Amino acid sequence: MKYSYVSHLECPKCHTAYQKNEVHHLCECGSPLLVHYDLEALKKDMPEPIPSERQSDLWRYHELLPLEEPTNLVSLGEGMTPLVPMTNIGRDMGIFHLLMKDEGMVPSGSFKARGAAVGISKAKELGIKEIAMPTNGNAGAAWSLYAARAGIKATIVMPEDAPEITRRECVVAGASLHLIDGLISDAGKVVAQAVKDYGLYDASTLKEPYRIEGKKTMGLELAEQLNWSMPNVILYPTGGGVGLIGIYKALLELKELGWVEGNLPRLVAVQSTGCAPIVQAWQDKKTLSEYWENSQTQAFGINVPKALGDFLVLDAIYQTNGCAVAIDDEVMLQELHTIGAMEGAFICPEGAAAFAAARELKQKGWIGDEETVVILNTGQGIKYPDTVKLDLPLLKKGDVLKR
Amino acid sequence: MKYSYVSHLECPKCHTAYQKNEVHHLCECGSPLLVHYDLEALKKDMPEPIPSERQSDLWRYHELLPLEEPTNLVSLGEGMTPLVPMTNIGRDMGIFHLLMKDEGMVPSGSFKARGAAVGISKAKELGIKEIAMPTNGNAGAAWSLYAARAGIKATIVMPEDAPEITRRECVVAGASLHLIDGLISDAGKVVAQAVKDYGLYDASTLKEPYRIEGKKTMGLELAEQLNWSMPNVILYPTGGGVGLIGIYKALLELKELGWVEGNLPRLVAVQSTGCAPIVQAWQDKKTLSEYWENSQTQAFGINVPKALGDFLVLDAIYQTNGCAVAIDDEVMLQELHTIGAMEGAFICPEGAAAFAAARELKQKGWIGDEETVVILNTGQGIKYPDTVKLDLPLLKKGDVLKR
Repeated sequence: MKYSYVSHLECPKCHTAYQKNEVHHLCECGSPLLVHYDLEALKKDMPEPIPSERQSDLWRYHELLPLEEPTNLVSLGEGMTPLVPMTNIGRDMGIFHLLMKDEGMVPSGSFKARGAAVGISKAKELGIKEIAMPTNGNAGAAWSLYAARAGIKATIVMPEDAPEITRRECVVAGASLHLIDGLISDAGKVVAQAVKDYGLYDASTLKEPYRIEGKKTMGLELAEQLNWSMPNVILYPTGGGVGLIGIYKALLELKELGWVEGNLPRLVAVQSTGCAPIVQAWQDKKTLSEYWENSQTQAFGINVPKALGDFLVLDAIYQTNGCAVAIDDEVMLQELHTIGAMEGAFICPEGAAAFAAARELKQKGWIGDEETVVILNTGQGIKYPDTVKLDLPLLKKGDVLKR
Repeated sequence: MKYSYVSHLECPKCHTAYQKNEVHHLCECGSPLLVHYDLEALKKDMPEPIPSERQSDLWRYHELLPLEEPTNLVSLGEGMTPLVPMTNIGRDMGIFHLLMKDEGMVPSGSFKARGAAVGISKAKELGIKEIAMPTNGNAGAAWSLYAARAGIKATIVMPEDAPEITRRECVVAGASLHLIDGLISDAGKVVAQAVKDYGLYDASTLKEPYRIEGKKTMGLELAEQLNWSMPNVILYPTGGGVGLIGIYKALLELKELGWVEGNLPRLVAVQSTGCAPIVQAWQDKKTLSEYWENSQTQAFGINVPKALGDFLVLDAIYQTNGCAVAIDDEVMLQELHTIGAMEGAFICPEGAAAFAAARELKQKGWIGDEETVVILNTGQGIKYPDTVKLDLPLLKKGDVLKR
């Protein structure tokens, strides 16, 4: 038994292979790289899924993660987030087996903690001293925090309009944070130049291969929480799309190991009508997306006009007979309030968009009454306080409540 | 085997007993009531601690919780928060076994979710339709959310100065929220009147007996996570003190069950120099605290000038040879930043006060080098964004980073 069964990195486009214990970013052909494991050997060593009594975080799946030395682990206890039944709103939508995987319940309050935990742990293993990345907020926050824990320096560039709280997280972690009057794509250009100028480790989405592996654990957990089975549909708010790529990769690996059986769930990429490059590409039956001009949405995490891994997202949708849906901000915010009032969950706008998409797909008949549907809520609502408007009565001492 | 071994309620002052399945608030003598269990029977039925493979939330301890019918359970997956090694800052303090129980990782991002989950579940079991409570923010947020999930109406009164984000949580949950120009004690008077006027269920701290039971699970988890053993010291940021009372109650129950052995940890109540009634009482060797005039601290959760359960908090400190420490806001905020930069954890100011107290107690020699010390971080830093000041460079498109 090995701690990790990682074997090598491989380009999903041109299939060039790369050594596992070297620093690699993109393939020579420009594509992101994927991490491969010796699943044959793991299947032989573990014919049954991992034991339920293992520690309750994402490192319970260490055989399927790229870290080889547990001493390099940088963890704040992330993972094994609850899979919460959403019975009230499910009934309201006519979906009778609706579950929410609540990614708010990780350090930094967003699913980005998974990618950061695995990415930073592996960076530490590779001897990295300094990273740089552009971010729409949550990723920069998570990577800053985990980098601090690992003793790695972080340089972060974030759009001025990104959620304000995420700035505080970067700063409290001691990261070097820069705001930019522009989008994440503009931030990306600044980072690319800094990486070149100063020899920093580029931790941009999919430019390092390990973030996907962290996000993959959402899929592993989901299968385990459903008693090693798969739901019918998974809806995922899609910006860079790493989570969706990761979940798809996880389920393929589990099938190859024989730990789950049957059809993969239909994967749904949820975007905003203000930034829907994947939805447009899917509607046009294309395998690549086009840059979305003048993108705008309050769901800042999915304001990504062109994702480097678009072809992987679209492939996952096509292979699973999934689809892609764009949701209007107003509809999304209404759904966010409905979820709060019906289920007692204050979720992020990106997650609310996914709920709105489920409602729409049920109305269209794309989701059936008895199907098991899982929605990924990618973060806590408290990180986006402006989604809830306030107009409150103010009492003075000695006042009484009137009804 | 029963789902719950709850037997009755009992007054810790005059020992009057009350039936378990009736609505009760305070004892006739004015004291809060405590929940009792048939530990003899449970010990017979479960000579060994609960099995590790149970679901990873606080309901894994259902035998020691007051809910009798699992169908009344109102849950968002709360509990089993990580116990995170704080090696870097521990070394900085000279405490070589320092652990943080991170209560930020529950729904609503604060430990108040525990009391709300158990309190609302039991309220549902008792047939309650409408609750009211005063709050310093986080409790009101948590109770509003769980009440919404249970279909129970909530009326909340909160000081105008309480953390702003908690208002949004109450509102998104559909609670009736009122701000007040005053302290939580002023809010409490308004609620007491409304309870009288409209026959609402009073969910004020310790005026309903079940919140303690939810908080108690912090102690149960802690013991289980330490492989059914106890640390030497536990530091707890203390406002109303329910968490500390709960942890103490949990450890006593576990000892009586024989699931843990040895000395109880020394319990430390951490307060602010701007509001330190428990510290003052402990220094004066008293069993009751006095109302703290003109209280003020940025750690809003511990701005409680007079706690109803003060005698229980002080008793827990005296019985365990613990102590009480007051921390200055400036020292607290400095510690908050040190923790961010050294450990990658953005914690709440109340939690930071507890870290500062550990540092002080180590310097004084009250904590020994080799002792195992657990600090309760009661919530996420992102709920208090103002603790981190911002002064950030703004780039324009095309700019490059300078070093």
